[in-house]
Amino acid sequence: MEQDTIIYGKNAVVEALEAGSRTFNKILISSASHADSKIEKIKELAKAGGIVFQFVNIQKLNQLVPEGRHQGVIAQVSPIKYVDLEDFIEQNQAKHASVVILDGVEDSHNVGAIIRSCVCAGVDGIILPSRRGVLINSTVEKTSAGAINHISIIKVNSLVNTVQRLKENNWWVIASDHHAKDNYYDIDYTDMNFALIMGAEHAGISKSLLKLSDFVIKIPMLTNFNSLNVSNAAAIILFERCRQILKAEKRGG
Amino acid sequence: MEQDTIIYGKNAVVEALEAGSRTFNKILISSASHADSKIEKIKELAKAGGIVFQFVNIQKLNQLVPEGRHQGVIAQVSPIKYVDLEDFIEQNQAKHASVVILDGVEDSHNVGAIIRSCVCAGVDGIILPSRRGVLINSTVEKTSAGAINHISIIKVNSLVNTVQRLKENNWWVIASDHHAKDNYYDIDYTDMNFALIMGAEHAGISKSLLKLSDFVIKIPMLTNFNSLNVSNAAAIILFERCRQILKAEKRGG
Repeated sequence: MEQDTIIYGKNAVVEALEAGSRTFNKILISSASHADSKIEKIKELAKAGGIVFQFVNIQKLNQLVPEGRHQGVIAQVSPIKYVDLEDFIEQNQAKHASVVILDGVEDSHNVGAIIRSCVCAGVDGIILPSRRGVLINSTVEKTSAGAINHISIIKVNSLVNTVQRLKENNWWVIASDHHAKDNYYDIDYTDMNFALIMGAEHAGISKSLLKLSDFVIKIPMLTNFNSLNVSNAAAIILFERCRQILKAEKRGG
Repeated sequence: MEQDTIIYGKNAVVEALEAGSRTFNKILISSASHADSKIEKIKELAKAGGIVFQFVNIQKLNQLVPEGRHQGVIAQVSPIKYVDLEDFIEQNQAKHASVVILDGVEDSHNVGAIIRSCVCAGVDGIILPSRRGVLINSTVEKTSAGAINHISIIKVNSLVNTVQRLKENNWWVIASDHHAKDNYYDIDYTDMNFALIMGAEHAGISKSLLKLSDFVIKIPMLTNFNSLNVSNAAAIILFERCRQILKAEKRGG
């Protein structure tokens, strides 16, 4: 077994147990925890799955996760399984699939929040570069509220090669860049496979990826303060797509 | 002078200097900082404003803000000036104003990101309850990327009384709640003064505020994973309003 990963926080642990895609080594619960419904659920799911859980002193938990952010629960689990790009493309060829590419996003909270929005918005995958930005860690998992168990996470060596492979397979490539001319809401997202590229917090999207993009879009603001958080920007674009899909379904029905 | 507040991070300090609404006591810059354009700008603005800046050992900064999140710059400033609710109502009566009410949002990163989105989206104010949730602190200021200097921040004792005062002054009240029947994109935001209430991360919006609301809206999802981060939810709703306003202006022009 590879080295254990830690998951902390009640929701993150419940989500991972329910998703069933991870191997649990052990769950540690603070002996000072009040017996709330989430803790009860964790105990039930652990029992049902034959997973060991232990009540431990809260200091033991604080050693593993600082500042009491663990909410009284820490699980030791197998690392997340990344999905192979070619497998992902093959599995999503026949439908109107979508994937978000994070080009060097550095803040774990942002990555976690983006994955959470992606799952809510029905996005099929997240592509992360292996050498820039954040990969999946405990903070990403916590911030995602367990969403990482409900989406394909693809780790790639080269985003340029990845975008080229997607284009060869008839995916459209959309880059979010605040210098763009086109507005995000003027694209029709309802009838295509697409990859949405979101750039790093300060540097934005690499030029080589901008060049490969079929659409470059911006989120127009009502003020000159043009500085959206990257996870909020991703949510705005992805939920515009949801809005379009739900409106189209309503018209169709 | 009241007790100093700390602002950290290059953008947050630049924004506060440019906004000019705070009294700066002193700016501390790491002597190990590379002379980049942001640091240069801070020095220029400080000189122009007669503000003392000092180069200090990075350990001194680390004592004030842990984990190196300060990016080499910390400013000691006067606390933020909260705006009085009645003044805010009076100043925003004649136009299509908007305000976001945070009903017990507990995470400083979320509050900061929401304020940032509000400023981008042209929202006029943020209302925070004085006894529940987060008030403005250094983390909020940093996460807001300085946006708190560009919006009225109103601290109130009772959200119920506040909502009643807004209603008496012909503001519409919109609550975001995932049990709602109506979709956020089916409201016309272009022709009213409104307050949008966003609830706490886990508890949602208080029942007493839901009862007072004119509209209760949800963000429909494409999956069963119904768990958006509160700052992302706020961004989705506020930018739907922007979309409507910009579309209407385009039609009008």
